[in-house]
Amino acid sequence: MLTPAQSDRLDVILVSPRNPLNIGAAARAMANFGFLHLSIVAPFAVNWMEAKSAVGAPDLLRDARVYDTLAEALAPCSLVLGTGSLDRRRPEQTILSLPAGAAQIRQALASAAESPAHSSRVALLFGSEKHGLTTEDISWCHALIVIDTADAQPSMNLGQAVAVCLYEISRDVPAESPLLNLKVADDSPTSDQLERLAGLIEETMDLVNYSTRGVRAANGEALRVLLRRLMPNEADLRRMMGLFRRILWQLGRTKNNP
Amino acid sequence: MLTPAQSDRLDVILVSPRNPLNIGAAARAMANFGFLHLSIVAPFAVNWMEAKSAVGAPDLLRDARVYDTLAEALAPCSLVLGTGSLDRRRPEQTILSLPAGAAQIRQALASAAESPAHSSRVALLFGSEKHGLTTEDISWCHALIVIDTADAQPSMNLGQAVAVCLYEISRDVPAESPLLNLKVADDSPTSDQLERLAGLIEETMDLVNYSTRGVRAANGEALRVLLRRLMPNEADLRRMMGLFRRILWQLGRTKNNP
Repeated sequence: MLTPAQSDRLDVILVSPRNPLNIGAAARAMANFGFLHLSIVAPFAVNWMEAKSAVGAPDLLRDARVYDTLAEALAPCSLVLGTGSLDRRRPEQTILSLPAGAAQIRQALASAAESPAHSSRVALLFGSEKHGLTTEDISWCHALIVIDTADAQPSMNLGQAVAVCLYEISRDVPAESPLLNLKVADDSPTSDQLERLAGLIEETMDLVNYSTRGVRAANGEALRVLLRRLMPNEADLRRMMGLFRRILWQLGRTKNNP
Repeated sequence: MLTPAQSDRLDVILVSPRNPLNIGAAARAMANFGFLHLSIVAPFAVNWMEAKSAVGAPDLLRDARVYDTLAEALAPCSLVLGTGSLDRRRPEQTILSLPAGAAQIRQALASAAESPAHSSRVALLFGSEKHGLTTEDISWCHALIVIDTADAQPSMNLGQAVAVCLYEISRDVPAESPLLNLKVADDSPTSDQLERLAGLIEETMDLVNYSTRGVRAANGEALRVLLRRLMPNEADLRRMMGLFRRILWQLGRTKNNP
């Protein structure tokens, strides 16, 4: 099990849940695995009141916070993981198996708990029973966790999905392999592609006087390191180059045409 | 996941279940993880009929076998594992953590599947919602599996316990350490910090006419996804915000001062 300080950094977030029984089941599973913080985004008002006032509802259900928008619920979170099945969509985000996603969450909870002054939190999102998370919901996520289920019946009941995820997050992992931070894929840009983007950004920095003469070299180096650490893919690169070309063109036009 | 021949050797056995919703939930979890054979021992007759005839009940629920006694249900089984929490009793049998018990079950399913002539089966028992397995039920078991839960709320909902056990049994063990792509540190920005940066970039996009009205929303969403995937740290964020503020200031100045 995690330490209480670690568990305390996790927000379980249900987006537009419909069935009061499922909300109650999610809360029960949270209590089973020692998690306290439930957030509900845009619940159906009547169903939410019914769930909250159910006999035997755990304290954490009565203490749950209700938000109008996902943005508000996620505001204090520095790692956001969505859950879902992959039957219909192929999101842009990294797809993690539940064991891999749970390992990430454990790591983030541990590092958050180690620095009590730092208040950053981890969010685990569950979509509504009918549609799961929407594409817009998923756009707030760093990665998507997919539970490995049978093709014939991939979609899990909400309360059961919450139970399985929290079980995996709180499970004792004896000898986990070290965490690897590098993601290199077929579509990772080459060094010279990154350098062309860096060139455009540096040119922009110069034009807007972001880099003074003294720190220009240092900024250039920091930029090179930054771009490599972020590891954009080729599509990202094209998008960023497009934007900076556009900025440069606009700046140049206003400059040359005062 | 297990092979179909392996999954086919497991009997999930519910002893005296009371709530039709829980019977349905157990069947749903079985379908999720590719198990087909449900046995019900001494169900409350009315509740069982209700569960079985529920709209959308999976085939395996309609095909479930009903027995009067546990002895009959277990007759073809060569390994029998019970489930439960340990709050009240200390049975004589070996107590296994769920990962250890699941490993035993996987091994037994694999060896049973390898000798098709041999018809031995593996049983996983769940007690009624109220009392769990009785001492007499447990006397039929080779060992007892206990899910590691919080002391404050050790007892799991039946459907959720079934889901968690079947998840663990069917989980991929060898590929224990998949690629971990996310790097989250103390200095990872929160969701609202990322959103402020996104706001500055969107404002820039508008000013330089990168986003036409038609693709503005789509670009905004793509930008949100991109920033989360790149996972900048707080220093990166400050740097990027500084640059875009500078760009905006410059664009505004040249615009207001043509």
